[in-house]
Amino acid sequence: MSLPEAVAPVREPGGQFLAEIREQPFALGALLENEREFAKVAAEARRRGATTVRLVGHGSSDNAAAYGVYAFGLQPRWTAMRDSITLTVHYRSELDLSTSTVIGLSQSGRTPDVVAYVERAREEGAFTVALTNDPGSELAGVAEAVLPLAAGPENAVAATKTYSNQVAALALLAAHAAGTGPRMADQLRVVAGQLSDLVPPLERRIAEVAMAFAYIGRMFVVGRGVEFSTAREIALKLLETCKIAAEPLTATALAHGPVAALDTLFPVWTIASRDGTLPAALEAAARVREAGATLVASGTAADAVEGADYVLAVPEPPDPLLSPLLSVVPGQLFAWAVAHAKGLDPDRPARLSKVTFAR
Amino acid sequence: MSLPEAVAPVREPGGQFLAEIREQPFALGALLENEREFAKVAAEARRRGATTVRLVGHGSSDNAAAYGVYAFGLQPRWTAMRDSITLTVHYRSELDLSTSTVIGLSQSGRTPDVVAYVERAREEGAFTVALTNDPGSELAGVAEAVLPLAAGPENAVAATKTYSNQVAALALLAAHAAGTGPRMADQLRVVAGQLSDLVPPLERRIAEVAMAFAYIGRMFVVGRGVEFSTAREIALKLLETCKIAAEPLTATALAHGPVAALDTLFPVWTIASRDGTLPAALEAAARVREAGATLVASGTAADAVEGADYVLAVPEPPDPLLSPLLSVVPGQLFAWAVAHAKGLDPDRPARLSKVTFAR
Repeated sequence: MSLPEAVAPVREPGGQFLAEIREQPFALGALLENEREFAKVAAEARRRGATTVRLVGHGSSDNAAAYGVYAFGLQPRWTAMRDSITLTVHYRSELDLSTSTVIGLSQSGRTPDVVAYVERAREEGAFTVALTNDPGSELAGVAEAVLPLAAGPENAVAATKTYSNQVAALALLAAHAAGTGPRMADQLRVVAGQLSDLVPPLERRIAEVAMAFAYIGRMFVVGRGVEFSTAREIALKLLETCKIAAEPLTATALAHGPVAALDTLFPVWTIASRDGTLPAALEAAARVREAGATLVASGTAADAVEGADYVLAVPEPPDPLLSPLLSVVPGQLFAWAVAHAKGLDPDRPARLSKVTFAR
Repeated sequence: MSLPEAVAPVREPGGQFLAEIREQPFALGALLENEREFAKVAAEARRRGATTVRLVGHGSSDNAAAYGVYAFGLQPRWTAMRDSITLTVHYRSELDLSTSTVIGLSQSGRTPDVVAYVERAREEGAFTVALTNDPGSELAGVAEAVLPLAAGPENAVAATKTYSNQVAALALLAAHAAGTGPRMADQLRVVAGQLSDLVPPLERRIAEVAMAFAYIGRMFVVGRGVEFSTAREIALKLLETCKIAAEPLTATALAHGPVAALDTLFPVWTIASRDGTLPAALEAAARVREAGATLVASGTAADAVEGADYVLAVPEPPDPLLSPLLSVVPGQLFAWAVAHAKGLDPDRPARLSKVTFAR
């Protein structure tokens, strides 16, 4: 995919990161051009009865995997899990994988233990699928089926458009498994349009908000259900680009210990979306306010969070399952803006490279 | 269980927390007195073919659940997962649970959404088990089988002996599922003896180390495989009792982003244990050193971590699967000592109570 003409390069520190945030609606459109591949993979999983879904990845890919639990649990009602790579690769436990679909997630397709896991799982009888931005990669080579992310080259170290395309890909694959793929593809097209409308005004608004966070070193990012993946991904962006010790928590986990650490210099970003988790999210936000911590409310139900210091709402998608595609964007832009406010270059985080070969 | 005579009450701030850390070997002994219950529950799970294990809990209970993935994956080679409570309780997805054993973990047996999940799972056909310190609790009432934690009353808000008994209980139940229960019970008795020998010298050593951390606000706690549960639990103790923004990470996840946030005032606690994950743990420790961050090495292979600023080794248990019972103790004592160094009372963390009723 070539860079869409609508997105001009940004020639300043963090320019790649910002350009790739802006490219997300176009990347989503490109993903949907391969819809037939998703239909085929879903049909094969159904044919083999491989209805236990094991998702493996690191970093942003692991965050997208957390979304997969809901995409499969809510659509075909299949059990999906972020599987332990260690159990298979390092401990060589031999689980029966004959009724499992394994999805290896890696932007580069070169993450060593994800490749090793997929190889091993294939030997154990799993149906193996590579979800990668490089269909010529090692990961694609070892898997039986390949789903191209089609996000175009991602040059910023911190992932953005490949994360959102992984989320969309899991939603689409799970929909095809449930027999509702075409409707989901239509809904994803609507979300692409919503993203295009959302980014420009949000960029301006975020720049004002970010200044207040220039001296912050710690944050919690709270989300539950489908938005836990969003919380994980926003926290990772803050760690990578802003040197903020940002920890993702479910709304309920916050109350089971971490709330004790809060104070006025320890802000909380909360994602409140309009689904069955909203009461838990609002209760968590109330705990944060009681602790005197600064509260940022985002998500489709951000307006429902009482007493928030900053409200960054996103529009409601056609299906609440797709909220994470929209609610991650304020977090991505916030990370970009806070990095600027701190004098950091979000395109060049210390000690990171685009492909991670860590064991 | 009455308080063992060997453990005298500690009458100072954090005295309950410290006394309960010291009680762990005795609590482990008490757990083993109910070994027959574990054998019965494992036999019933086998009889029903309920070999997919779904673990649910919050806070320390959720950390123990992370251990369960390995206890079941390595012994009977059953697939175990920390299941999504939200999917079942808030989204009301109807998964087929007829081949699942559900284990609800709650010290008090009163955690609302854990009770709700277990009730729902039982309706969906799962074999439901309550692992709780209160066999008369609501959780015990809704489950088909009850495994008593038998840790005795836990008064400190931050869990210690109930966490370690949850870990031991999962090891024992999984061993019975694999037909090796009696051997595991013997090994756990050996570990109880190792714990008794470990605590007194470690208390003295930790008090010296903790002083250097009195002004620290952020930490990572790194562990992989069976020790990821330990990393999660130590991080939670630091959040609860020391107001440190401590984030648990797998050794590999560290390299996929968070390493960028490290600096000389952002120390890392690493758990290196002698099993298949050791190379990954050592590689992660090397990355931490390169970042100039203070490095604490603990675990059974702490001595193998080159260049660590502090080494807090624990003895090797009879089976590497049981390392977490030993390697959590330096972290518990460290939390106690750092809280003292910061002038905080670890028995009374802000905004927490012993039973959490959060949605």
